[in-house]
Amino acid sequence: MSLLENLKWRYATKKFDATKKVSEDDVNKIVEAARLAPTSSGLQQFRVIVVTNQELKEKIVPIAWGQQIVADCSHLLVFAAWDKYTAERIDDVFNATVAERQIPYEQVAAYVERLKSIYLNQSAEENFVHTARQAYIGFGLSIAQAAELKVDATPMEGFTSTDLDALLGLEAKGLKSVTMLPLGYRDAANDWLVNLKKVRVSTNDFVIEYR
Amino acid sequence: MSLLENLKWRYATKKFDATKKVSEDDVNKIVEAARLAPTSSGLQQFRVIVVTNQELKEKIVPIAWGQQIVADCSHLLVFAAWDKYTAERIDDVFNATVAERQIPYEQVAAYVERLKSIYLNQSAEENFVHTARQAYIGFGLSIAQAAELKVDATPMEGFTSTDLDALLGLEAKGLKSVTMLPLGYRDAANDWLVNLKKVRVSTNDFVIEYR
Repeated sequence: MSLLENLKWRYATKKFDATKKVSEDDVNKIVEAARLAPTSSGLQQFRVIVVTNQELKEKIVPIAWGQQIVADCSHLLVFAAWDKYTAERIDDVFNATVAERQIPYEQVAAYVERLKSIYLNQSAEENFVHTARQAYIGFGLSIAQAAELKVDATPMEGFTSTDLDALLGLEAKGLKSVTMLPLGYRDAANDWLVNLKKVRVSTNDFVIEYR
Repeated sequence: MSLLENLKWRYATKKFDATKKVSEDDVNKIVEAARLAPTSSGLQQFRVIVVTNQELKEKIVPIAWGQQIVADCSHLLVFAAWDKYTAERIDDVFNATVAERQIPYEQVAAYVERLKSIYLNQSAEENFVHTARQAYIGFGLSIAQAAELKVDATPMEGFTSTDLDALLGLEAKGLKSVTMLPLGYRDAANDWLVNLKKVRVSTNDFVIEYR
Protein backbone atom coordinates (compact mmCIF):
# COMPACT_ATOMS: atom_id res chain seq x y z
CA MET A 1 0.00 0.00 0.00
CA SER A 2 1.09 3.56 -0.68
CA LEU A 3 1.92 6.09 2.03
CA LEU A 4 -1.37 7.91 1.39
CA GLU A 5 -3.34 4.68 1.74
CA ASN A 6 -1.47 3.90 4.95
CA LEU A 7 -2.21 7.37 6.34
CA LYS A 8 -5.90 6.88 5.57
CA TRP A 9 -5.85 3.45 7.24
CA ARG A 10 -4.30 4.63 10.51
CA TYR A 11 -6.15 6.31 13.35
CA ALA A 12 -5.26 7.25 16.93
CA THR A 13 -6.11 3.93 18.54
CA LYS A 14 -7.95 4.42 21.82
CA LYS A 15 -8.12 0.78 22.98
CA PHE A 16 -5.45 -1.87 22.52
CA ASP A 17 -5.82 -5.63 22.79
CA ALA A 18 -3.43 -6.17 25.72
CA THR A 19 -2.87 -9.81 24.73
CA LYS A 20 -1.34 -9.04 21.33
CA LYS A 21 2.33 -8.17 20.99
CA VAL A 22 4.07 -6.43 18.12
CA SER A 23 7.04 -8.37 16.76
CA GLU A 24 10.53 -7.11 17.53
CA ASP A 25 11.18 -6.92 13.80
CA ASP A 26 8.26 -4.53 13.33
CA VAL A 27 9.24 -2.41 16.33
CA ASN A 28 12.78 -2.16 14.98
CA LYS A 29 11.46 -0.88 11.65
CA ILE A 30 9.25 1.70 13.38
CA VAL A 31 12.26 3.00 15.33
CA GLU A 32 14.44 2.84 12.22
CA ALA A 33 12.11 5.21 10.36
CA ALA A 34 12.76 7.79 13.10
CA ARG A 35 16.50 7.13 13.01
CA LEU A 36 16.54 7.79 9.26
CA ALA A 37 14.49 10.99 9.62
CA PRO A 38 16.07 14.15 8.26
CA THR A 39 16.90 16.71 10.96
CA SER A 40 18.25 20.23 11.03
CA SER A 41 21.94 20.14 10.01
CA GLY A 42 21.76 16.35 10.37
CA LEU A 43 22.22 16.67 14.12
CA GLN A 44 19.54 14.08 15.07
CA GLN A 45 18.53 16.09 18.12
CA PHE A 46 16.28 13.37 19.56
CA ARG A 47 16.28 9.77 20.75
CA VAL A 48 13.61 7.06 21.03
CA ILE A 49 12.97 5.20 24.28
CA VAL A 50 11.30 1.78 23.94
CA VAL A 51 9.41 0.65 27.04
CA THR A 52 8.21 -2.96 27.21
CA ASN A 53 8.54 -3.48 30.97
CA GLN A 54 4.96 -3.87 32.19
CA GLU A 55 5.60 -2.46 35.67
CA LEU A 56 7.14 0.64 34.14
CA LYS A 57 4.24 1.05 31.68
CA GLU A 58 1.80 0.87 34.62
CA LYS A 59 3.76 3.62 36.39
CA ILE A 60 3.42 5.81 33.32
CA VAL A 61 -0.41 5.59 33.28
CA PRO A 62 -0.92 8.27 35.97
CA ILE A 63 1.78 10.42 34.33
CA ALA A 64 -0.27 10.10 31.13
CA TRP A 65 -3.33 11.43 32.95
CA GLY A 66 -4.82 7.99 33.51
CA GLN A 67 -4.78 6.86 29.90
CA GLN A 68 -4.87 3.06 30.07
CA ILE A 69 -3.53 2.59 26.54
CA VAL A 70 -0.06 3.17 27.96
CA ALA A 71 -0.38 -0.04 30.02
CA ASP A 72 -2.32 -2.03 27.42
CA CYS A 73 -0.03 -1.33 24.49
CA SER A 74 2.61 -3.80 23.37
CA HIS A 75 5.51 -1.35 23.15
CA LEU A 76 5.55 2.25 24.34
CA LEU A 77 7.81 4.56 22.35
CA VAL A 78 8.86 7.86 23.93
CA PHE A 79 10.37 10.53 21.70
CA ALA A 80 12.76 12.74 23.66
CA ALA A 81 14.77 15.69 22.37
CA TRP A 82 18.09 17.13 23.47
CA ASP A 83 17.50 19.47 26.40
CA LYS A 84 20.02 21.88 24.85
CA TYR A 85 22.85 22.15 22.35
CA THR A 86 26.40 21.66 23.56
CA ALA A 87 29.71 21.94 21.73
CA GLU A 88 30.35 18.27 22.47
CA ARG A 89 27.08 17.12 20.92
CA ILE A 90 27.67 19.13 17.76
CA ASP A 91 31.28 17.94 17.58
CA ASP A 92 30.27 14.29 18.02
CA VAL A 93 27.97 14.48 14.98
CA PHE A 94 30.46 16.18 12.70
CA ASN A 95 33.42 14.09 13.82
CA ALA A 96 31.38 11.01 12.92
CA THR A 97 30.34 12.60 9.62
CA VAL A 98 33.86 13.34 8.39
CA ALA A 99 35.02 9.88 9.53
CA GLU A 100 32.19 8.07 7.72
CA ARG A 101 32.47 10.18 4.59
CA GLN A 102 36.28 10.08 4.66
CA ILE A 103 36.55 13.79 4.06
CA PRO A 104 38.93 16.26 5.78
CA TYR A 105 37.52 18.06 8.84
CA GLU A 106 38.32 21.37 7.15
CA GLN A 107 35.36 20.80 4.80
CA VAL A 108 32.93 21.14 7.70
CA ALA A 109 34.89 23.32 10.14
CA ALA A 110 33.33 26.68 9.20
CA TYR A 111 29.83 25.18 9.23
CA VAL A 112 30.38 23.65 12.67
CA GLU A 113 31.59 26.98 14.02
CA ARG A 114 28.56 28.72 12.57
CA LEU A 115 26.17 26.25 14.21
CA LYS A 116 27.93 26.69 17.55
CA SER A 117 27.83 30.48 17.26
CA ILE A 118 24.05 30.27 16.72
CA TYR A 119 22.96 27.61 19.19
CA LEU A 120 25.43 28.11 22.03
CA ASN A 121 24.42 31.78 22.21
CA GLN A 122 20.77 30.84 22.78
CA SER A 123 19.19 29.85 26.08
CA ALA A 124 18.52 26.17 26.80
CA GLU A 125 14.81 26.96 26.38
CA GLU A 126 15.36 28.40 22.91
CA ASN A 127 17.52 25.39 22.03
CA PHE A 128 14.78 23.02 23.14
CA VAL A 129 12.14 24.75 21.01
CA HIS A 130 14.32 23.80 18.06
CA THR A 131 15.39 20.29 19.10
CA ALA A 132 11.80 19.31 19.97
CA ARG A 133 10.65 20.27 16.48
CA GLN A 134 13.10 17.78 14.98
CA ALA A 135 11.67 15.00 17.16
CA TYR A 136 8.29 15.56 15.51
CA ILE A 137 9.74 14.72 12.08
CA GLY A 138 10.84 11.32 13.38
CA PHE A 139 7.57 10.95 15.27
CA GLY A 140 5.63 11.41 12.02
CA LEU A 141 7.79 8.91 10.16
CA SER A 142 7.40 6.29 12.91
CA ILE A 143 3.63 6.75 12.71
CA ALA A 144 3.82 6.20 8.94
CA GLN A 145 6.05 3.13 9.38
CA ALA A 146 3.67 1.60 11.92
CA ALA A 147 0.80 2.09 9.47
CA GLU A 148 2.78 0.46 6.66
CA LEU A 149 3.19 -2.61 8.88
CA LYS A 150 -0.48 -2.48 9.96
CA VAL A 151 0.61 -1.90 13.52
CA ASP A 152 -1.75 0.39 15.42
CA ALA A 153 -0.32 3.43 17.15
CA THR A 154 -1.55 6.39 19.17
CA PRO A 155 0.24 9.72 18.81
CA MET A 156 0.18 11.26 22.31
CA GLU A 157 1.22 14.55 23.82
CA GLY A 158 -1.05 14.14 26.83
CA PHE A 159 1.36 13.46 29.68
CA THR A 160 3.39 15.40 32.23
CA SER A 161 6.81 15.43 30.61
CA THR A 162 8.76 16.45 33.71
CA ASP A 163 7.37 13.46 35.62
CA LEU A 164 8.11 11.10 32.74
CA ASP A 165 11.64 12.46 32.43
CA ALA A 166 12.19 11.81 36.13
CA LEU A 167 10.81 8.27 35.96
CA LEU A 168 12.90 7.34 32.92
CA GLY A 169 16.03 9.15 34.11
CA LEU A 170 16.11 11.29 31.00
CA GLU A 171 17.59 14.38 32.61
CA ALA A 172 20.86 12.54 33.23
CA LYS A 173 20.90 11.68 29.53
CA GLY A 174 20.34 15.32 28.53
CA LEU A 175 16.91 14.55 27.10
CA LYS A 176 13.37 15.85 27.60
CA SER A 177 10.34 13.85 26.48
CA VAL A 178 8.06 15.44 23.88
CA THR A 179 5.70 12.75 22.59
CA MET A 180 4.69 9.13 23.18
CA LEU A 181 3.63 6.49 20.67
CA PRO A 182 2.03 3.37 22.16
CA LEU A 183 2.13 0.49 19.65
CA GLY A 184 -0.09 -2.56 19.49
CA TYR A 185 -3.21 -3.95 17.91
CA ARG A 186 -6.62 -2.36 18.19
CA ASP A 187 -9.38 -3.85 20.32
CA ALA A 188 -11.96 -2.86 17.72
CA ALA A 189 -14.96 -4.02 19.73
CA ASN A 190 -14.07 -1.62 22.55
CA ASP A 191 -12.55 1.33 20.70
CA TRP A 192 -14.96 4.28 20.41
CA LEU A 193 -12.91 5.94 17.68
CA VAL A 194 -12.30 3.03 15.32
CA ASN A 195 -15.46 3.46 13.23
CA LEU A 196 -15.65 7.24 13.26
CA LYS A 197 -14.86 9.07 10.04
CA LYS A 198 -11.41 10.63 9.69
CA VAL A 199 -11.95 14.38 9.52
CA ARG A 200 -9.54 16.75 7.81
CA VAL A 201 -9.80 20.31 6.58
CA SER A 202 -10.50 20.40 2.81
CA THR A 203 -7.61 20.65 0.39
CA ASN A 204 -8.99 24.04 -0.68
CA ASP A 205 -8.62 25.33 2.87
CA PHE A 206 -5.33 23.53 3.53
CA VAL A 207 -3.37 24.74 0.51
CA ILE A 208 -2.50 28.31 -0.48
CA GLU A 209 -1.19 28.60 -4.03
CA TYR A 210 1.01 31.25 -5.64
CA ARG A 211 1.09 30.46 -9.35
CA MET B 1 9.53 0.41 -2.32
CA SER B 2 9.05 0.48 1.44
CA LEU B 3 9.15 3.62 3.55
CA LEU B 4 12.56 2.63 4.92
CA GLU B 5 13.93 2.16 1.39
CA ASN B 6 12.49 5.53 0.39
CA LEU B 7 14.07 7.22 3.40
CA LYS B 8 17.44 5.72 2.47
CA TRP B 9 17.01 6.87 -1.14
CA ARG B 10 16.24 10.49 -0.30
CA TYR B 11 18.80 13.16 0.56
CA ALA B 12 18.69 16.91 1.00
CA THR B 13 19.14 17.86 -2.64
CA LYS B 14 21.53 20.78 -3.03
CA LYS B 15 21.21 21.39 -6.79
CA PHE B 16 18.06 21.05 -8.86
CA ASP B 17 17.77 20.73 -12.62
CA ALA B 18 15.82 23.94 -13.24
CA THR B 19 14.45 22.58 -16.54
CA LYS B 20 12.56 19.67 -14.97
CA LYS B 21 9.10 20.15 -13.47
CA VAL B 22 7.28 17.92 -11.02
CA SER B 23 3.81 16.88 -12.21
CA GLU B 24 0.80 18.47 -10.56
CA ASP B 25 -0.39 14.98 -9.63
CA ASP B 26 2.81 14.30 -7.71
CA VAL B 27 2.74 17.71 -5.99
CA ASN B 28 -0.86 17.09 -4.95
CA LYS B 29 0.13 13.78 -3.35
CA ILE B 30 3.02 15.40 -1.49
CA VAL B 31 0.68 18.04 -0.08
CA GLU B 32 -1.98 15.41 0.64
CA ALA B 33 0.44 13.50 2.90
CA ALA B 34 0.73 16.64 5.03
CA ARG B 35 -3.04 17.15 5.01
CA LEU B 36 -3.56 13.60 6.30
CA ALA B 37 -0.92 14.02 9.02
CA PRO B 38 -2.07 13.44 12.58
CA THR B 39 -1.96 16.57 14.73
CA SER B 40 -2.63 17.39 18.36
CA SER B 41 -6.38 17.07 19.02
CA GLY B 42 -6.87 16.86 15.25
CA LEU B 43 -6.64 20.64 15.00
CA GLN B 44 -4.37 20.70 11.89
CA GLN B 45 -2.53 23.75 13.17
CA PHE B 46 -0.63 24.35 9.92
CA ARG B 47 -1.10 25.01 6.22
CA VAL B 48 1.02 24.42 3.11
CA ILE B 49 1.81 27.19 0.65
CA VAL B 50 2.74 26.08 -2.89
CA VAL B 51 4.84 28.58 -4.82
CA THR B 52 5.37 28.02 -8.54
CA ASN B 53 5.53 31.66 -9.62
CA GLN B 54 9.13 32.12 -10.80
CA GLU B 55 9.33 35.81 -9.92
CA LEU B 56 8.17 35.05 -6.40
CA LYS B 57 10.66 32.19 -6.04
CA GLU B 58 13.46 34.55 -7.11
CA LYS B 59 12.37 37.03 -4.43
CA ILE B 60 12.62 34.30 -1.82
CA VAL B 61 16.27 33.51 -2.65
CA PRO B 62 17.69 36.41 -0.58
CA ILE B 63 15.21 35.61 2.22
CA ALA B 64 16.65 32.07 2.14
CA TRP B 65 20.13 33.46 2.63
CA GLY B 66 21.03 33.24 -1.05
CA GLN B 67 20.21 29.57 -1.54
CA GLN B 68 19.61 29.20 -5.27
CA ILE B 69 17.67 25.93 -4.90
CA VAL B 70 14.64 28.05 -4.03
CA ALA B 71 14.67 29.55 -7.53
CA ASP B 72 15.78 26.38 -9.34
CA CYS B 73 13.21 24.05 -7.80
CA SER B 74 10.02 23.11 -9.61
CA HIS B 75 7.64 23.80 -6.71
CA LEU B 76 8.45 25.46 -3.41
CA LEU B 77 6.37 24.27 -0.47
CA VAL B 78 6.22 26.46 2.63
CA PHE B 79 4.90 24.94 5.86
CA ALA B 80 3.30 27.62 8.05
CA ALA B 81 1.71 27.13 11.47
CA TRP B 82 -1.09 29.02 13.19
CA ASP B 83 0.39 32.10 14.88
CA LYS B 84 -1.84 31.39 17.90
CA TYR B 85 -4.93 29.52 19.02
CA THR B 86 -8.27 31.30 18.92
CA ALA B 87 -11.71 30.17 20.01
CA GLU B 88 -12.89 30.50 16.43
CA ARG B 89 -10.18 28.22 15.06
CA ILE B 90 -10.88 25.54 17.64
CA ASP B 91 -14.64 25.87 17.08
CA ASP B 92 -14.27 25.60 13.31
CA VAL B 93 -12.50 22.25 13.63
CA PHE B 94 -14.95 20.71 16.07
CA ASN B 95 -18.04 22.07 14.32
CA ALA B 96 -16.77 20.38 11.15
CA THR B 97 -15.99 17.20 13.10
CA VAL B 98 -19.47 16.76 14.58
CA ALA B 99 -21.06 17.60 11.21
CA GLU B 100 -18.95 15.06 9.31
CA ARG B 101 -19.32 12.37 11.96
CA GLN B 102 -23.02 13.14 12.43
CA ILE B 103 -22.68 13.12 16.20
CA PRO B 104 -24.25 15.58 18.67
CA TYR B 105 -22.06 18.55 19.67
CA GLU B 106 -22.48 17.53 23.33
CA GLN B 107 -20.12 14.61 22.69
CA VAL B 108 -17.21 17.02 22.13
CA ALA B 109 -18.33 20.06 24.15
CA ALA B 110 -16.34 19.32 27.32
CA TYR B 111 -13.22 18.48 25.31
CA VAL B 112 -13.50 21.72 23.32
CA GLU B 113 -13.84 23.75 26.53
CA ARG B 114 -10.80 21.99 27.98
CA LEU B 115 -8.68 22.80 24.91
CA LYS B 116 -9.77 26.43 25.06
CA SER B 117 -9.01 26.66 28.78
CA ILE B 118 -5.49 25.41 28.08
CA TYR B 119 -4.53 27.24 24.91
CA LEU B 120 -6.37 30.53 25.29
CA ASN B 121 -4.67 31.04 28.67
CA GLN B 122 -1.25 30.77 27.08
CA SER B 123 0.64 33.54 25.30
CA ALA B 124 0.71 33.60 21.50
CA GLU B 125 4.40 32.64 21.76
CA GLU B 126 3.57 29.54 23.82
CA ASN B 127 0.79 28.68 21.38
CA PHE B 128 3.18 28.91 18.45
CA VAL B 129 5.72 26.60 20.08
CA HIS B 130 2.97 23.98 20.00
CA THR B 131 1.45 24.70 16.59
CA ALA B 132 4.87 24.76 14.92
CA ARG B 133 5.62 21.27 16.26
CA GLN B 134 2.54 19.93 14.49
CA ALA B 135 3.75 21.38 11.20
CA TYR B 136 6.87 19.22 11.48
CA ILE B 137 4.76 16.04 11.47
CA GLY B 138 3.28 17.05 8.13
CA PHE B 139 6.68 18.22 6.91
CA GLY B 140 8.14 14.76 7.61
CA LEU B 141 5.29 13.01 5.84
CA SER B 142 5.61 15.24 2.77
CA ILE B 143 9.32 14.41 2.65
CA ALA B 144 8.42 10.70 2.79
CA GLN B 145 5.77 11.11 0.09
CA ALA B 146 8.19 12.93 -2.22
CA ALA B 147 10.68 10.09 -1.77
CA GLU B 148 8.01 7.49 -2.57
CA LEU B 149 7.39 9.31 -5.86
CA LYS B 150 11.14 9.69 -6.51
CA VAL B 151 10.75 13.43 -6.38
CA ASP B 152 13.76 15.16 -4.86
CA ALA B 153 13.22 17.53 -1.97
CA THR B 154 15.28 19.67 0.36
CA PRO B 155 14.12 20.13 3.96
CA MET B 156 15.02 23.73 4.84
CA GLU B 157 14.87 25.86 7.94
CA GLY B 158 17.48 28.31 6.67
CA PHE B 159 15.45 31.43 5.90
CA THR B 160 14.25 34.55 7.67
CA SER B 161 10.69 33.63 8.53
CA THR B 162 9.48 37.15 9.29
CA ASP B 163 10.59 38.33 5.83
CA LEU B 164 8.97 35.32 4.16
CA ASP B 165 5.73 35.89 6.09
CA ALA B 166 5.67 39.49 4.92
CA LEU B 167 6.33 38.58 1.28
CA LEU B 168 3.63 35.88 1.23
CA GLY B 169 1.12 37.88 3.27
CA LEU B 170 0.96 35.16 5.91
CA GLU B 171 0.36 37.47 8.88
CA ALA B 172 -3.05 38.40 7.51
CA LYS B 173 -3.83 34.69 7.31
CA GLY B 174 -2.77 34.12 10.94
CA LEU B 175 0.18 31.98 9.88
CA LYS B 176 3.93 31.99 10.50
CA SER B 177 6.31 30.04 8.27
CA VAL B 178 8.41 27.32 9.88
CA THR B 179 10.00 25.25 7.11
CA MET B 180 10.39 25.13 3.35
CA LEU B 181 10.52 22.12 1.04
CA PRO B 182 11.73 22.84 -2.50
CA LEU B 183 10.71 20.01 -4.86
CA GLY B 184 12.25 19.02 -8.16
CA TYR B 185 14.77 16.70 -9.75
CA ARG B 186 18.41 16.57 -8.79
CA ASP B 187 21.14 17.91 -11.04
CA ALA B 188 23.41 15.05 -10.03
CA ALA B 189 26.44 16.28 -11.97
CA ASN B 190 26.48 19.53 -9.99
CA ASP B 191 25.25 18.42 -6.55
CA TRP B 192 28.09 18.12 -4.04
CA LEU B 193 25.98 16.05 -1.64
CA VAL B 194 24.48 13.47 -3.98
CA ASN B 195 27.28 10.91 -3.68
CA LEU B 196 28.19 11.42 -0.03
CA LYS B 197 27.24 8.69 2.43
CA LYS B 198 24.13 9.23 4.54
CA VAL B 199 25.33 9.49 8.14
CA ARG B 200 23.16 8.59 11.11
CA VAL B 201 23.90 7.84 14.74
CA SER B 202 24.00 4.07 15.36
CA THR B 203 20.85 2.27 16.47
CA ASN B 204 22.65 1.47 19.72
CA ASP B 205 23.11 5.15 20.44
CA PHE B 206 19.68 6.16 19.09
CA VAL B 207 17.52 3.76 21.11
CA ILE B 208 17.17 3.46 24.87
CA GLU B 209 15.39 0.28 25.97
CA TYR B 210 13.48 -0.49 29.17
CA ARG B 211 12.67 -4.19 29.06
